[in-house]
Amino acid sequence: MKRVLITGAAGFVGGLLARRLSAADAGIEQLVLADRASASVTGSARWIEGDLADPAFVDRLAAERCDTVFQLASQPGGQAEREPARGRRINLDATLDLFEAVASAGTEHGARPVMVFASSIAVYGTGLTAQVDDRTPLHPALSYGAHKRMAEIALADFVRRGELEGCSLRLPGIVARPRGPAGQASAFMSELMHALAAGERFVCPVSAQASAWWMSGECAVRNLLHAARLDASAQQPGRTWQLPVLRLSLAQVVDALAQRFGDGRRRLVEYQPDDALEAIFGRYPPLDDRLARVAGFVDDATPALLIANALQAHEPLLTTTQGDNHDRTPHP
Amino acid sequence: MKRVLITGAAGFVGGLLARRLSAADAGIEQLVLADRASASVTGSARWIEGDLADPAFVDRLAAERCDTVFQLASQPGGQAEREPARGRRINLDATLDLFEAVASAGTEHGARPVMVFASSIAVYGTGLTAQVDDRTPLHPALSYGAHKRMAEIALADFVRRGELEGCSLRLPGIVARPRGPAGQASAFMSELMHALAAGERFVCPVSAQASAWWMSGECAVRNLLHAARLDASAQQPGRTWQLPVLRLSLAQVVDALAQRFGDGRRRLVEYQPDDALEAIFGRYPPLDDRLARVAGFVDDATPALLIANALQAHEPLLTTTQGDNHDRTPHP
Repeated sequence: MKRVLITGAAGFVGGLLARRLSAADAGIEQLVLADRASASVTGSARWIEGDLADPAFVDRLAAERCDTVFQLASQPGGQAEREPARGRRINLDATLDLFEAVASAGTEHGARPVMVFASSIAVYGTGLTAQVDDRTPLHPALSYGAHKRMAEIALADFVRRGELEGCSLRLPGIVARPRGPAGQASAFMSELMHALAAGERFVCPVSAQASAWWMSGECAVRNLLHAARLDASAQQPGRTWQLPVLRLSLAQVVDALAQRFGDGRRRLVEYQPDDALEAIFGRYPPLDDRLARVAGFVDDATPALLIANALQAHEPLLTTTQGDNHDRTPHP
Repeated sequence: MKRVLITGAAGFVGGLLARRLSAADAGIEQLVLADRASASVTGSARWIEGDLADPAFVDRLAAERCDTVFQLASQPGGQAEREPARGRRINLDATLDLFEAVASAGTEHGARPVMVFASSIAVYGTGLTAQVDDRTPLHPALSYGAHKRMAEIALADFVRRGELEGCSLRLPGIVARPRGPAGQASAFMSELMHALAAGERFVCPVSAQASAWWMSGECAVRNLLHAARLDASAQQPGRTWQLPVLRLSLAQVVDALAQRFGDGRRRLVEYQPDDALEAIFGRYPPLDDRLARVAGFVDDATPALLIANALQAHEPLLTTTQGDNHDRTPHP
């Protein structure tokens, strides 16, 4: 991993990854950050601004001939559901265009480019069975999830054809995203942490018993980097990994926040469950993630570490330089 | 089913379906047949010639506002593997464009358009487990199969959004295709029948023990029509059906041919297995097709009926009017 491209680099996860790779000790020779608007970043990274929906922009990125590409750019699930044409354009067509262009351009040293694609647990949809494993039928409840699944299949096909290396990672809700309006329907998971950390009231749109899959931005970055370095022989046939997660109820997360910030914080939470959100984000069953663990992927280990990682990740080293409501990170 | 559009109507399965629906007793008011080159057809059908890769052609088809659309047009698996850009264009992009355009144009009477999409058993790929069912992991061994799977997911998403009705059918090798060069890697399955029917020698590229999934064109047409009439309440959540099949070894098919045409025909077959073909077409395991049978889908019942249906289907009522090596039928 010497020449690296990150799409969606001004987004939450993209920004954390960019910060990590721009550090001097990361040993990256060339770090190319792509997004619709650049953001400040420490180190020697270079920004390329443009819209992934523009084929010329995709070609320009491929012409960098990076050995490793993190495809994090996406139209969030809520927005994609309201604007299906734009959703298809970014989350499917442009993603495939990028795979194709990067495969065709190749790398500086002739090795196959490694593509790490940020997929999502949105591929599963609602009505999940008692335990999720690699045979769980997928019935996405959002076009976002349908397109993520389609792109996973496309990436596996590029690998089969010998044109790319790499894999797709199914990311759960990543916390704690920056506060403020976001396109993600799951934004409440981050908002809960920020509110209780700040000592503010929080109206929770799912019940205390709602069980969700959790991962910090810090942990997501570790897994993305691990994926980029994973040997082909350690890959699964479909080149898709369900990452390990912490499966926690909202009450368990509130407990962990109360443990860190004081018991009084519990009283700040009022549960007003929304049926639709509860159905999508409150019914995640246990996950059989043994394969991913054996392959070296990780979760945040404990609720306390989840909180610590999540709120540490929030310290902004990246500041978006212009207004931009197009979030590029991979969660619905 | 009053106004019907068939894409790939000059292909093998498309032609059989067109012939059936153009019969006076089919009760179709308007039958629109689309393909790159028209073919003669009895009845009141109307041809529209064009390339599905052309967005204007797709819009023109959608403007017919048919209540039922059979999307049979495809780039065959062998060709798509050699020309991946064209394969993606037809089997994925244009197929999704058609879904989108038909959903957007709607129907004459305001009901949701019914889309019946010809998918393929190529979605499974090699390395199948002991029995195939609806939880079998899919690892397509051809881009054709990857794109078919992606289009299945897209159609299910249009249905979920309330913009289309219908479903995808996974078709096995359909016999007996017309003789002559075809893009399908599975063409030998049809060629075997034609050769033995005609009393000609046949060099079989898979072994006598090779087990494949078989269906006649006649049977495929019955299933396509059944799919178009299937009530939404009878559909599966993923809107994808693995059709029932006859699982037969090559030796069993040769037996059935010998039974019909005389025992001497056995000596016409020489087995010269090709490892690659054997891996793809000779290792199909048993199939749990109970769900599809309960829903009313059918197979050819017996090897003898398979042969009878397959060779009857071969009688050409449709003659392609110009040279065209672009086959539109759904099998690899």
